[in-house]
Amino acid sequence: RRGEMAKSTQLIDNEVFRAYATYTAIVLLKMMLMSLITAYFRITRKAFVNPEDTASFGKGESAKKYLRTDPDVERARRGHLNDLENIVPFVGIGLLYALSGPELSTALLHFRIFTGARIFHTFAYLIPLPQPGRGLSWAVAYSVTFSMAYKVLKTVWLL
Amino acid sequence: RRGEMAKSTQLIDNEVFRAYATYTAIVLLKMMLMSLITAYFRITRKAFVNPEDTASFGKGESAKKYLRTDPDVERARRGHLNDLENIVPFVGIGLLYALSGPELSTALLHFRIFTGARIFHTFAYLIPLPQPGRGLSWAVAYSVTFSMAYKVLKTVWLL
Amino acid sequence: RRGEMAKSTQLIDNEVFRAYATYTAIVLLKMMLMSLITAYFRITRKAFVNPEDTASFGKGESAKKYLRTDPDVERARRGHLNDLENIVPFVGIGLLYALSGPELSTALLHFRIFTGARIFHTFAYLIPLPQPGRGLSWAVAYSVTFSMAYKVLKTVWLL
Repeated sequence: RRGEMAKSTQLIDNEVFRAYATYTAIVLLKMMLMSLITAYFRITRKAFVNPEDTASFGKGESAKKYLRTDPDVERARRGHLNDLENIVPFVGIGLLYALSGPELSTALLHFRIFTGARIFHTFAYLIPLPQPGRGLSWAVAYSVTFSMAYKVLKTVWLL
Repeated sequence: RRGEMAKSTQLIDNEVFRAYATYTAIVLLKMMLMSLITAYFRITRKAFVNPEDTASFGKGESAKKYLRTDPDVERARRGHLNDLENIVPFVGIGLLYALSGPELSTALLHFRIFTGARIFHTFAYLIPLPQPGRGLSWAVAYSVTFSMAYKVLKTVWLL
Repeated sequence: RRGEMAKSTQLIDNEVFRAYATYTAIVLLKMMLMSLITAYFRITRKAFVNPEDTASFGKGESAKKYLRTDPDVERARRGHLNDLENIVPFVGIGLLYALSGPELSTALLHFRIFTGARIFHTFAYLIPLPQPGRGLSWAVAYSVTFSMAYKVLKTVWLL
């Protein structure tokens, strides 16, 4: 199995790259989970945005009343957008960082803190926890991405 | 030409990677198309959000009335955001999947179904088609990304 | 240092890839900056969206009045979303482009124009500059990504 893969590319045999792939898959799956949470709130709170989504509740005014916003739906959507704004830079900069030759232990430290902070951020947003819980977890993940970007630019700089 | 490229990297000579690159370019171009569709609806429906965008319609109240939301503009924007939420995980997880050594036929199956489902999703959103057309195409593309993530984690797992 | 990195991967020794990594880190950091700008406007304009974010202003009605939208906050948020819609395709297609074996000078031209146009776009959005400043910078960056996608598809096409 491994030998077969090594033929196609060596990247996957690099331990730092394997760690990057593991944590990137985890945080992207976590981000995808936000779609299911939003859908769950839309259905249980009966709060939709597209007229065609309420057709099963009947025609006309009886269905129209479900075209509305709901605080829980909006909260899940804000958490999802915040994931996009923060996980996209992690995935992009993290790839370059993994290829820039960091120590495995340093790389694992970055990936673990980022992933832990973003999972905490989601709980802090959805429960919601009192501030500064959510704010701090956001800042921790943000700082990790910034630290990786610094290492990337120091290593590859070619303007 | 090929020989010259092989000097810089072997990745591009890997058939699975070439398939990944082809489908990723297609779905990202499809996502970029949503900007043009939104712009088209903003201009034809005269529905803008930035005051400076309505300056060509005159000063004061005459221009202010074009600062409004329009159902078609909002629908195109929701389609665009849904693309971001679903195509970003595909691009990230798909790259790791392509590097994890799948069979070419299995990889092509994943990429083709995802791309077909997301193109269908856009039509289902914009026309709009009655549900569950849009919902099903969303679920199919979501499941493909999930299947690729499973293969990635099984292959690279290093926590 | 270089020798040690070359063991793990050759990608980072490729000049086109180093240029890609540099400009990608820069535009992703620029996108991340939008979070700080939004937070700055939220705090100075006292305009929040989550009830738990206004708890430090007191309880009940006295805090509730800060749950509101503000034009500057909304403008920064639109700039951030526009970055997501345009920088995500650049990062994804740019990676494939960098691996498709372009001339360094051609690649640098693409990366520099995209990065310059997106930085100008942010200033045009936030100041704001009169149109068509923002529109043109958006179109320039969009065209660069389109040009890279064309090169990628011409090189790798495997459907």
